[in-house]
Amino acid sequence: MKRLKATITYDGYGFAGYQVQPNARTVQLELERVLTKMHKGSTVRVVASGRTDAGVHATGQVIHFDTDLQFPIDRWQRALNVQLPGDIRVLSVEEVSTDFHARYGTSGKVYRYKWGLGDVESPFKRHYVVYMPGTKPDIQRMREAAQTFLGTHDFTSFCSARTEVVDRVRTITRLDLLETEQDELHMVIEGDGFLYNMVRIIAGNLWEVGIGRREPGDIAQMLAAMDRKKAGKTAPAHGLYLESVFYNE
Amino acid sequence: MKRLKATITYDGYGFAGYQVQPNARTVQLELERVLTKMHKGSTVRVVASGRTDAGVHATGQVIHFDTDLQFPIDRWQRALNVQLPGDIRVLSVEEVSTDFHARYGTSGKVYRYKWGLGDVESPFKRHYVVYMPGTKPDIQRMREAAQTFLGTHDFTSFCSARTEVVDRVRTITRLDLLETEQDELHMVIEGDGFLYNMVRIIAGNLWEVGIGRREPGDIAQMLAAMDRKKAGKTAPAHGLYLESVFYNE
Repeated sequence: MKRLKATITYDGYGFAGYQVQPNARTVQLELERVLTKMHKGSTVRVVASGRTDAGVHATGQVIHFDTDLQFPIDRWQRALNVQLPGDIRVLSVEEVSTDFHARYGTSGKVYRYKWGLGDVESPFKRHYVVYMPGTKPDIQRMREAAQTFLGTHDFTSFCSARTEVVDRVRTITRLDLLETEQDELHMVIEGDGFLYNMVRIIAGNLWEVGIGRREPGDIAQMLAAMDRKKAGKTAPAHGLYLESVFYNE
Repeated sequence: MKRLKATITYDGYGFAGYQVQPNARTVQLELERVLTKMHKGSTVRVVASGRTDAGVHATGQVIHFDTDLQFPIDRWQRALNVQLPGDIRVLSVEEVSTDFHARYGTSGKVYRYKWGLGDVESPFKRHYVVYMPGTKPDIQRMREAAQTFLGTHDFTSFCSARTEVVDRVRTITRLDLLETEQDELHMVIEGDGFLYNMVRIIAGNLWEVGIGRREPGDIAQMLAAMDRKKAGKTAPAHGLYLESVFYNE
């Protein structure tokens, strides 16, 4: 028995999220279906670095699974891609130690959030980039507010009220706002871990600062309140991408 | 009664092409449905610069229609976009002379064809960029072959055998092959007019030259043959974009 680590990308539009749930098409379901078929029907369980919500995309999600197939490691990527649907692609596969764990072993993640700045929503990007017609953000104000998130904070105000995790202290090591040549604004955020909805709530609040609905200085008060109701809206799912996952060692 | 010219963009994935046909969702159908509704049920006919096939996209298709609505010209774009489905967007609307004709008045068009050069098809581009896994084109060879198309030629070998148009002489004024930062190869072609499937057959043959299946010098022989069977494959529809349409005056 050996353990394989795979980096995958998926278009979240056609999925009810990453994690298996009844009567829904999910990324995990498709991965396990293909792997179970390759293993002649014996169930293969896939562990991901974390779940992503319905509509959320990934360009660098990491998973692991165990296999006893005698299959050269350099054939795995192609074998999986031949059988997977086109909205999931395997980018790389490597053998790892059996104590590697895609979820518990993470040391950090990078997410990207994409807004469209054009006046008209592109029909090609409607499931991939968030347009807010009639609003123009002040990106300098957003950058000023973003500084407040850097470092170690209790993010209770910036996670779903349904979050069950008790320890809401997380460290943000990077939070950039980048204007792209495609007339988009990207928020790139890196941290040691993220709570449920945390990236989308941070994005939603930075946007509200950008359009003048809140002041850059409000962020510090929201963090201090440790109350989800003190922070603004959660940004839509379809602008969010899980971009990379880091592991110790 | 006044005539309006509109520039529109659409994601061809969800359409059975531009032109109305029985029991199919088409771009023209959606446009006429919205306009007819705006005109309280009296049918509005839309004329486009030309049809596009199922799966083909547009970033600058031009249409015209006539209206007697007393509606300020600067409200039209937004009024249409509010009612149209998200895979069609109106980019601009202007009033034109009643002798403007979106189809018969064209003096030239630009099309773009997109190939992906990465090893793995991006799940986000699978309906928008053509991937040919396992092949790497020699772009210099494609550029050499492309030169042969420039100028005025009879394109009988490079249009569908079902083409009913008798005069197959067209002039190509630009044919560039551009590598993009997104690891794509784009063919940009400009001419005074294009026959049915002409851009996709040119793209398909340039690709065959690129991967060594044909020689750059073969193009001249194909043109001279005036026989569709002497040229190679038609490239897939989903890589093609109608980018701009030009009019005299």
